[in-house]
Amino acid sequence: MSERIIKAFKNAAIEKKNRQDYFNIAVSVDCVIFGYDNHELYVLLMQSDLEEFQGLNSLLGDLVRPSEDLTEASFRILWERTGLQNVYLEQVHTFGKVCRHPSGRVITTAYFSLIDMQHQQLNIAEHQLDWYPVRKVKRLAFDHLEILQLCLQQLQQKVMERPVVFHLLPPLFSLRELQSVFEAILGIELDRRNFRKKIAIKDWIIDTNTLEKEVNHRPGKLYKLKAGLVNNFRPYQ
Amino acid sequence: MSERIIKAFKNAAIEKKNRQDYFNIAVSVDCVIFGYDNHELYVLLMQSDLEEFQGLNSLLGDLVRPSEDLTEASFRILWERTGLQNVYLEQVHTFGKVCRHPSGRVITTAYFSLIDMQHQQLNIAEHQLDWYPVRKVKRLAFDHLEILQLCLQQLQQKVMERPVVFHLLPPLFSLRELQSVFEAILGIELDRRNFRKKIAIKDWIIDTNTLEKEVNHRPGKLYKLKAGLVNNFRPYQ
Repeated sequence: MSERIIKAFKNAAIEKKNRQDYFNIAVSVDCVIFGYDNHELYVLLMQSDLEEFQGLNSLLGDLVRPSEDLTEASFRILWERTGLQNVYLEQVHTFGKVCRHPSGRVITTAYFSLIDMQHQQLNIAEHQLDWYPVRKVKRLAFDHLEILQLCLQQLQQKVMERPVVFHLLPPLFSLRELQSVFEAILGIELDRRNFRKKIAIKDWIIDTNTLEKEVNHRPGKLYKLKAGLVNNFRPYQ
Repeated sequence: MSERIIKAFKNAAIEKKNRQDYFNIAVSVDCVIFGYDNHELYVLLMQSDLEEFQGLNSLLGDLVRPSEDLTEASFRILWERTGLQNVYLEQVHTFGKVCRHPSGRVITTAYFSLIDMQHQQLNIAEHQLDWYPVRKVKRLAFDHLEILQLCLQQLQQKVMERPVVFHLLPPLFSLRELQSVFEAILGIELDRRNFRKKIAIKDWIIDTNTLEKEVNHRPGKLYKLKAGLVNNFRPYQ
């Protein structure tokens, strides 16, 4: 008689009873919301409302409710904290250090979001939020600085692979603005000619045959993202 | 007096007490271990030991221990289930549907791993594991089919961006073998000349000035991965 046949099965209910101390974790969602303005990449932060982190900022997050999916939670939290719906939201990484939260074991899944901060209506005052230049953020509550840094790294890696950066821009933009967004994300200056060549190869954008208005330099052509390239817009349900 | 000043802080201990029903989740890790042999991409599966999934296979996974980090858990589980250490392991995504596990709320973080199945010593018999061609896997326990499919998608996206595919191959390989691995992952046939051109541009491999032996076709040149390109080897601690 082979070992496979006499294998003993476990039962889900008994399994839970035997490992009750494993079912003692809370899960949270933290949203890293990037915005762009005037050559600078920003992140949306809130004042921590935990006594233990008084005076520090944190990412926008909350515990996942017992009856709520992870994705639902991320949209709900973004909506509750900012009034935003229909934004680009992408899961990045889950952070599971044992002592990362003073309330007990809380594992957190980080999402990042990119929004056009000039043209989105955020309930900033109401929720004690503010935009901070990413490169100036040196301290955050919990392990949120580590989370922010990983999300920034991922954004930097993705920026040339997929057309995500356009979420940061208005529907019509100049190549000058587009280059400036890339520079703000990558933290480096790019050569104008090389950049334009690379973007042309990507085939992400089309010329709208219109020009910039009210700019204090020679008006540049305005471009827009090709139809069908915007993905991952999911409404909060 | 502004609203900011009179803001009330919450205390971590009280916060936990108030939201006790949130701390009722277990977290698991599931490893999607890919292997390659003879034009075919394989995944390592185990027989589910839960009564509810009798007769079905599952990914290699387990609950994260109360005192264990997520990363530690993934290496521990891989080691316990396969005897493998020092393998490439990368976090992919966290799955958090409310009813995905019959024992209660279990959120799972998926990792993928790529190994050279011909040259790794796996304790397969001891752990009731087996390799299955990925394209033939149609049903798995839990939501593991969805997890497998997402990991395959990620692998397909990454395969031309980063030199991950070499974990599937022995240290020396021919371009014919390399192309075959890409084809097995992508599920399509590639044009030989185009493929070689793309790989050359990547600058990932170098010619070792040796030839294949004991092959039933004209011996091809043997290549190896450039030094410094293998990353994410982390020992189980």
